[in-house]
Amino acid sequence: MLDKAIPYWQANRSPHLEGLKTFLRIPSISALPQYRNDVARAGAFVADHLRWLGLNDVAVVTGNEGEHPLVTGQWLGAPGKPTVLLYAHYDVQPVDPLEKWESQPFEPTERNGKLFARGSADDKGQLWILLKALEGFLKTGEGKLPVNVKLLFEGEEEYTGAHVERFVDGKPAYLNGVTSALVLDTGMFAPGLPTICTGLRGIITAEVTVRGANRDLHSGEFGGAAPNPLQALSEIIAALKTPSGRVRIPGFYSSVLKPSKLEKESWSKLFFDENTYRQELGASGLIGDSRYSVLHRLWALPTLEINGIAGGFAGEGFKTVIPSTAVAKISLRLVPDMDPDEIAQAFKKRVLSVSPPHVQTEVKILAASPAMVIDTADPTIKAAADAYKDTFGVQTAYVREGGSIPIAGSFKSVQGVPVLITGFTLPDCNMHAPNENLDLDNFYKGIEAIGRYLNILGQ
Amino acid sequence: MLDKAIPYWQANRSPHLEGLKTFLRIPSISALPQYRNDVARAGAFVADHLRWLGLNDVAVVTGNEGEHPLVTGQWLGAPGKPTVLLYAHYDVQPVDPLEKWESQPFEPTERNGKLFARGSADDKGQLWILLKALEGFLKTGEGKLPVNVKLLFEGEEEYTGAHVERFVDGKPAYLNGVTSALVLDTGMFAPGLPTICTGLRGIITAEVTVRGANRDLHSGEFGGAAPNPLQALSEIIAALKTPSGRVRIPGFYSSVLKPSKLEKESWSKLFFDENTYRQELGASGLIGDSRYSVLHRLWALPTLEINGIAGGFAGEGFKTVIPSTAVAKISLRLVPDMDPDEIAQAFKKRVLSVSPPHVQTEVKILAASPAMVIDTADPTIKAAADAYKDTFGVQTAYVREGGSIPIAGSFKSVQGVPVLITGFTLPDCNMHAPNENLDLDNFYKGIEAIGRYLNILGQ
Repeated sequence: MLDKAIPYWQANRSPHLEGLKTFLRIPSISALPQYRNDVARAGAFVADHLRWLGLNDVAVVTGNEGEHPLVTGQWLGAPGKPTVLLYAHYDVQPVDPLEKWESQPFEPTERNGKLFARGSADDKGQLWILLKALEGFLKTGEGKLPVNVKLLFEGEEEYTGAHVERFVDGKPAYLNGVTSALVLDTGMFAPGLPTICTGLRGIITAEVTVRGANRDLHSGEFGGAAPNPLQALSEIIAALKTPSGRVRIPGFYSSVLKPSKLEKESWSKLFFDENTYRQELGASGLIGDSRYSVLHRLWALPTLEINGIAGGFAGEGFKTVIPSTAVAKISLRLVPDMDPDEIAQAFKKRVLSVSPPHVQTEVKILAASPAMVIDTADPTIKAAADAYKDTFGVQTAYVREGGSIPIAGSFKSVQGVPVLITGFTLPDCNMHAPNENLDLDNFYKGIEAIGRYLNILGQ
Repeated sequence: MLDKAIPYWQANRSPHLEGLKTFLRIPSISALPQYRNDVARAGAFVADHLRWLGLNDVAVVTGNEGEHPLVTGQWLGAPGKPTVLLYAHYDVQPVDPLEKWESQPFEPTERNGKLFARGSADDKGQLWILLKALEGFLKTGEGKLPVNVKLLFEGEEEYTGAHVERFVDGKPAYLNGVTSALVLDTGMFAPGLPTICTGLRGIITAEVTVRGANRDLHSGEFGGAAPNPLQALSEIIAALKTPSGRVRIPGFYSSVLKPSKLEKESWSKLFFDENTYRQELGASGLIGDSRYSVLHRLWALPTLEINGIAGGFAGEGFKTVIPSTAVAKISLRLVPDMDPDEIAQAFKKRVLSVSPPHVQTEVKILAASPAMVIDTADPTIKAAADAYKDTFGVQTAYVREGGSIPIAGSFKSVQGVPVLITGFTLPDCNMHAPNENLDLDNFYKGIEAIGRYLNILGQ
């Protein structure tokens, strides 16, 4: 089947790219309520495309109030062959600061062999890779695939992820018979180096609200006596870390599993230069515990990061105000074997214990999911490495990711199947940032690589 | 002249209030560029009204690029009598957070004997009191006033104040012959208690910008190694104060002049209850050095307040970002005899010295002006106390203000004249905050009190 699919993928690069551009023009920002209809439009667009491909039982699955839909569809015409669950997400991150984009985030633009648009890398571009890989077989092989597939695409991975979690936790009939899962939502460690992720950090997201007076106050009239929530919030945040960046929450590091000797050896071969890394970031220094390598800190140590602070007047001009409220958005990344609920409680307790007595502080835990690790010896993981060798001509790198994909953990724990976590974005893809981009060569090679992978699984 | 003016003020309360409402409907927010034309409109409105009153040499004085105009006008028909410089400002503060206003900020609304609108208290309502006081004499006394007056109204007191400062510093011919100044921009210590301000804190405004990486980063991918400017900014801010609120800048308190015994005695008579103050603020505690009374902290000690922080994503939803930049707006209030430039440099030095090495920190000083104190024995101050006794029936309170009015210092230092700093707003006027309001009884009494004051000066 591959013999016909490969020339098809090569001949159809232009329409495949144009289709992706149309998909990227839909601003499916899941975290912002005003884009709710656009997320729904993106889901419907995917469902329509699945029908056009010839998949069966295509459905847009609506969730609870405030949730975004799932899109499903399957092809089970290869009895006796494996059934692969294919996962990606069609929602994207917010785009601010908009002024830092060199081209409009929802008008896909090609520059220097890359396609720039919000979602090009994370994750609409990769969802499209999955569909185009299937298309190669379906359109050249009389509507047949080398394996059975069940698709599960979500529209709120960048928001709560609640809908797909509940769907998978509920063990629906739709997922019966799945033999392995493929999560296409990560990237390559370096250009030309195909990469499989063997571990993901878990995540806790939280909102800390500090209240002072019952109204905004004039800082000249009241300053020096009235509590200032911005000052108090800063003092709380400062108390959450040592100057070098070690997290000051009792018990935070006590369940941290050390990476295996094998993993640490493979990381040391990755030609990762810490000074180059710092320079590429344009930073005057790095943070974290200097007893550990930077890769160790990114992949095998937990973190606490302030993702946003708001309070008072910080626009152009000046307003001599003491705001009544200040808010910080804080996320913590977890590694095996940290317990998300335990850590969330320890975080909350620490924030409240360092909160100054003259303010009222509230901690709201928004989400909490554990880290996961993958067994590299599984045949479905080896199959991917073989497919990548055939496509890219080099051995696959096994790395961990600092980010979190909670659903990958659910596939493993609830469905009990091996999970391949992989993807084709590059380190400079600017995921979650302005000028997000997808390398076009990787887009085309990714389609071929996923096709080869499914073909090997079917043999 | 007063015999005719008093019945005029009483008979014309309704048109005087309607005129003020029309004035308040112009959104003259000086700090926000998009309101530039509205500030100009407010200035033109005032100038037109001066012409209607019959003042001479009315002018709208434009400044440098980016500055807002001054409005001037005079009446010098009383040779041998004093010449009083009357100052107020026609610009207002921004209105955010808009959702906390019970009625629209630029649609003046009467509730419970108060007029709610941005600028009703600070300072358009008080500017209008000046004009209506003059109107009472001019419209009933054949176009005559009991004293000579020179009006100086500015449109950027809530922004930079640069234009009026330069104007006064330049000793223009317009200000020749002024014998005293009246700055109508403060309030009453309590309802029914006429108040003269005998000291104002100076102010330094500054912007602190902290830069980490050269772009926004995904906090999962980079968290734990990349510097986070929000974390660093919080650490800087926390290091600027002790937990009790004492400012940690070397030399900050060394030039602080102690208030006189007389002042401290008069403050102790003010029936100020610190617990009531705290409860009225709805705060769980107050800050500051507990060796000093709250009034002492507010009026005679310097402060450092965080007026705004911005960085990352703090809106609805969640964005796992490490922002490249974080900004804080910080103001310091100064008391006699602190030197603004010395303190500004000490502040800058302290911020840079506590800034973590992994970020780049920049401190921009936006403005710096010294504190001032007033001699209560001056006859022009005594005249005000007499006028207030006649209007309100009680003795005047002498207080200091925690806020800053740089131009009052300039009148004193550049023109060398005594300056009466007073006003008729109440402690709950919500100046600079949502639901700003002016007590209507004080509006009408204020007109009469200013009229009586000018009348006494002319005797």
